Amino acid sequence: MTRVALAVDLGGTKIEAGLVDERGGVLAASRNRAPTGRQVTPDGLRAAVSSVVGRAIEQLPHGTELVGAGVGSAGPVDLVRGTIHPVNMPQVAGFPLADAVRDAVVVDAGVVDAQVTLRHDGGALALAESWLGATAGSRASLSIVVSTGIGGGIVIDGRPIGGSSGNAGHLGQTHVPTDGGEFTLEEVASGPASVQWAQLHGWRGSTGEQLAEDARRGDRAARGAIERSAYAVGRALADATTLLDLDVIAISGGFSFVADDYVELVSATLADWADLPYARATRVVRSGLGSDGPLVGAAALAFF
Amino acid sequence: MTRVALAVDLGGTKIEAGLVDERGGVLAASRNRAPTGRQVTPDGLRAAVSSVVGRAIEQLPHGTELVGAGVGSAGPVDLVRGTIHPVNMPQVAGFPLADAVRDAVVVDAGVVDAQVTLRHDGGALALAESWLGATAGSRASLSIVVSTGIGGGIVIDGRPIGGSSGNAGHLGQTHVPTDGGEFTLEEVASGPASVQWAQLHGWRGSTGEQLAEDARRGDRAARGAIERSAYAVGRALADATTLLDLDVIAISGGFSFVADDYVELVSATLADWADLPYARATRVVRSGLGSDGPLVGAAALAFF
Repeated sequence: MTRVALAVDLGGTKIEAGLVDERGGVLAASRNRAPTGRQVTPDGLRAAVSSVVGRAIEQLPHGTELVGAGVGSAGPVDLVRGTIHPVNMPQVAGFPLADAVRDAVVVDAGVVDAQVTLRHDGGALALAESWLGATAGSRASLSIVVSTGIGGGIVIDGRPIGGSSGNAGHLGQTHVPTDGGEFTLEEVASGPASVQWAQLHGWRGSTGEQLAEDARRGDRAARGAIERSAYAVGRALADATTLLDLDVIAISGGFSFVADDYVELVSATLADWADLPYARATRVVRSGLGSDGPLVGAAALAFF
Repeated sequence: MTRVALAVDLGGTKIEAGLVDERGGVLAASRNRAPTGRQVTPDGLRAAVSSVVGRAIEQLPHGTELVGAGVGSAGPVDLVRGTIHPVNMPQVAGFPLADAVRDAVVVDAGVVDAQVTLRHDGGALALAESWLGATAGSRASLSIVVSTGIGGGIVIDGRPIGGSSGNAGHLGQTHVPTDGGEFTLEEVASGPASVQWAQLHGWRGSTGEQLAEDARRGDRAARGAIERSAYAVGRALADATTLLDLDVIAISGGFSFVADDYVELVSATLADWADLPYARATRVVRSGLGSDGPLVGAAALAFF
C-alpha cells in the first residue's frame, strides 16, 4: 500500500498543506494554501488550518495509507505543549497548532487517529535536506536559510535534533560582533539588514534583487553589504561547527543567491575562523532542495 | 551476572583506568593511573595504556561480565578512525587510542572481544552528568568544564552527541568578543586566562586559589577577573542554547569554584543575552558529579 504523510508549513505570509509520498513527491492536486500575515488571529488561523488540511486530505488517493502529519512552523515553537510562539505573528502566541492540525484531520477529514509531529520550520527544512538534498548521508549537518530572516535546523545520524522544546537550529538569534557593536546574526546578515547597510553606505536601491545586480556591476557598497553578510554567517557557522562537529552545512534561502560566490565567501570565512581542524574541515554547500523543501521537510517529520 | 565496563580517561598529565559497574560505582582496586605529559610519545603512551588497562582488567571479579570499554580523551579526537589529536600532547597526534585500548584488553588481558567507544573527554563527562549528575532526566543538556581549559559535551535524550568526528561540545574554541578584540572563550575565561588578566590589572597573586581568596577579601582586580570569566562563559552559553535549545547546563571544573556566585553570574549573563524565550529559560547549575566523573563518563560510553 502506498504511504503518504500530510505536510503542513506555516509561515508569516501563508499556510500551506499537501500530501507527500515516501519518495518525497508532493501530490500536486493536494497542495493548497491560505494567507496568514502579521495580524492573523487564533480563530483566523484555526479556520486556515482546517481549510488547507481538509482540502489536502480530500485528495488522499484510494488505497493509500496516511501515516501521520508533520508540521513545520515559524518559530519559536513548544513541541512539548504543541504550541507555536511565532515572532512575526504575535496574536497567535500559544496557539495549539498540533491540536488544530489533529482536529482538522480527525474531525473534519474523518481519519480515525493521526500522529502529529511539530517542529520549527528550520528543523523541518533541515530534515528534508538530509533526506533528499545536499546533506544526505551526513553524520551531522546544519541546514540554514538566509532570507528575510536567518534560521536553521540540525540533523544528526538522520534524526532531527529538536532540543528541549523543538527549537534547536535558531542560528539567526546567535550573536556576532560587527561594526563595533554586538548584534544577532539576523540583525547583521539577513536580506533586509544587508539592503539597509548598503543604503547607509550610499547605495540607492531597495531590494535584494537590485543589490545582487548592482554588486555584479561593481557597486562597492552593494558588494560590501553582500560580503559583510557572508562574513557574519561564516563567523557564526565557525562557532556552530566547533560546538557541533558538523561534516556539512547547507545554505538555502533567497538571499544566498545574491552573489554567485556567496556560499564560497561563507565557506572561506568559516575556514579562517574555526580554530580546530575538525571544524575547519566542515564543508559548506548550496542546498539541494527545490521550492518543495518546506513541505517535504514537514512530511519527513511524519515519516522518520 | 554483574556487568562492568572498562573506563579509560586520557588527560594532559595522566591516563587513568578502572572498572565501573552499572550503577556508576568505580571498583576501587581496579583504579590506577600512569603519567602522560606534554612530551609523551606514541611508544610511551602505548605502554601506559597497556599498563593501566592491564592492571584494571586484572581486578575483574569472577562472575562479572565485561560489556566493553569506553575511552574519554583530551581532544580533538577522530572517532571514525579511532585516533586522538590532543592539542596539549602534540607528539601523539594521530595515535590510535581505540586500537591501543582494544589490544590491551584482547591481547594483554585475554578477553576475546571488546567493543571500544572513544569520545573527547568533555563528551564523556557530559554523559556521566546526564546519567548520575545534575542533568539527569534532561531532554537536551550541555555540561561544561571551566578549568585550565574550557570544554564540554552535549547529551540529547540520554544519548551523547558526538557530531561528525566525536568532538561536539568544544565550547572553549568558540569565540567571544572581549576588550575590543575577539578571542576564543578559553583564551578569555579559563583559569590561567583569568589569573593573567587580574595580573595585568594590578593583582599580585599567581594561582586560581589566591584569586578566589583575594576576590572574597574585596580585591577589585581579582573580583573583576572572575566576573569577566563568568560573563564570557554566559555569553557563549546564551548562543549555545539558542542554537541547541537546552533545558539545563551543568558547570564543573576547578575554576567554577573560584567564587560562590560563579554559576549565578553565568546564569544571569545567559538570561541577559539570550534573545528567545526558550533560550532564556535554560537553567544553569553546578555539576552533580564528584572526582569520579571522567571515569564514570567513559564507562557510560560503553553502557549506553
